[in-house]
Amino acid sequence: FASLRASTRPDLSRRLFRLIKSENHVITAYNTAAHERQCIATQLSEWGESTGDDAVSELSDKLGVILAEIGGLEEGFATNLEGCRTVLKTIRNTESSVGPSRENRARILEDIRRLEYKEPNSPRLAILEQELVRAEAENLVAEAQLTNITRAKLKEAYVKHFAAVVERAEKQAILARHGRRMLELLNDEPVVPGDMHEPFEREGEARQILNDAEEELRQWTSDIE
Amino acid sequence: FASLRASTRPDLSRRLFRLIKSENHVITAYNTAAHERQCIATQLSEWGESTGDDAVSELSDKLGVILAEIGGLEEGFATNLEGCRTVLKTIRNTESSVGPSRENRARILEDIRRLEYKEPNSPRLAILEQELVRAEAENLVAEAQLTNITRAKLKEAYVKHFAAVVERAEKQAILARHGRRMLELLNDEPVVPGDMHEPFEREGEARQILNDAEEELRQWTSDIE
Repeated sequence: FASLRASTRPDLSRRLFRLIKSENHVITAYNTAAHERQCIATQLSEWGESTGDDAVSELSDKLGVILAEIGGLEEGFATNLEGCRTVLKTIRNTESSVGPSRENRARILEDIRRLEYKEPNSPRLAILEQELVRAEAENLVAEAQLTNITRAKLKEAYVKHFAAVVERAEKQAILARHGRRMLELLNDEPVVPGDMHEPFEREGEARQILNDAEEELRQWTSDIE
Repeated sequence: FASLRASTRPDLSRRLFRLIKSENHVITAYNTAAHERQCIATQLSEWGESTGDDAVSELSDKLGVILAEIGGLEEGFATNLEGCRTVLKTIRNTESSVGPSRENRARILEDIRRLEYKEPNSPRLAILEQELVRAEAENLVAEAQLTNITRAKLKEAYVKHFAAVVERAEKQAILARHGRRMLELLNDEPVVPGDMHEPFEREGEARQILNDAEEELRQWTSDIE
């Protein structure tokens, strides 16, 4: 039997390792949501056609287009989160590489203490002292790299993250508002048995709403970052 | 062996039945995303504390609060989608109940045609004609109910849906913008080996950003629906 700990990460990078793994679950969840929403968009359009109600048929198809675009944005969001995750990995990798440097310094210190106790006059002490100076210099650089990378990459990762949240939010709000306009074209005044709704004649308006949504999305620009 | 079709839904409500099932997958995906994002928020805060860097510790904790709120909104969004799904079920149930009415009318028509061919003078024909008149009246009501329910509930479901998209979008954009401000408090100028960052003294500003975000969320109101 090997140690249970053999397969665990060094303590320094363990927390971030887990966080990066959780990010992966989030990304998978958004990709699932994206895929299912796009399926639903098609299902809505096909259902609308099967009702034989011309207004429902026309509008459910156009609503489907808007819903599919909202789903597509979830996919783009997942891709952006993947980008943040990659940036966080830089911190994790630096943490992993700083661990051995700390351990090396601690090990030499420990060796010196043991030797000072057992053989205070050993000539090896001078050698160990020299080793310690080198290890401390190396560790000083490693610690500076760690703090520099940590701060810069933490900032970079979450600047990207928040920019992605804002982009998805603003674009989805644009689509939802145009979707809301689309619903206004559906006359839901009840009919009495035997009566029928007027034929649907607002296809042009419905088409215009899609064009407006497309145009507004095209003109969208990020105002943060 | 029973028919393969025995367990499938009647054709009329089959499409919507599937759509409602897909909606369930979307809701599950958002609940997963919500849960994982809230885990990540805690992991980020704990990681930050473990770095021993006071700025990273303080800010990762505050960023975690913002990220947890963003995750909480995914959960609220999933709950709202559940509401839309319930509305769509009303259409599906009406579709299911209209099927037998259509079939009954068709069956009587078929019986009349067969009898007219085989026994054109049968006294049963008059009875069947009466039955047909009743079945047609019943079906006329059912069809009117179906078209009325379909239009009204389709509109209701997607008005709710788009309102939910806008609410999540606008609230998450508010949080992301304040998160972006939070990141500005992190000094990521690199230090040289042996130097240290100044002690972090912007806790007050960080706290104020959280208060601002909370206040802005409290004042948010929907301008659609």
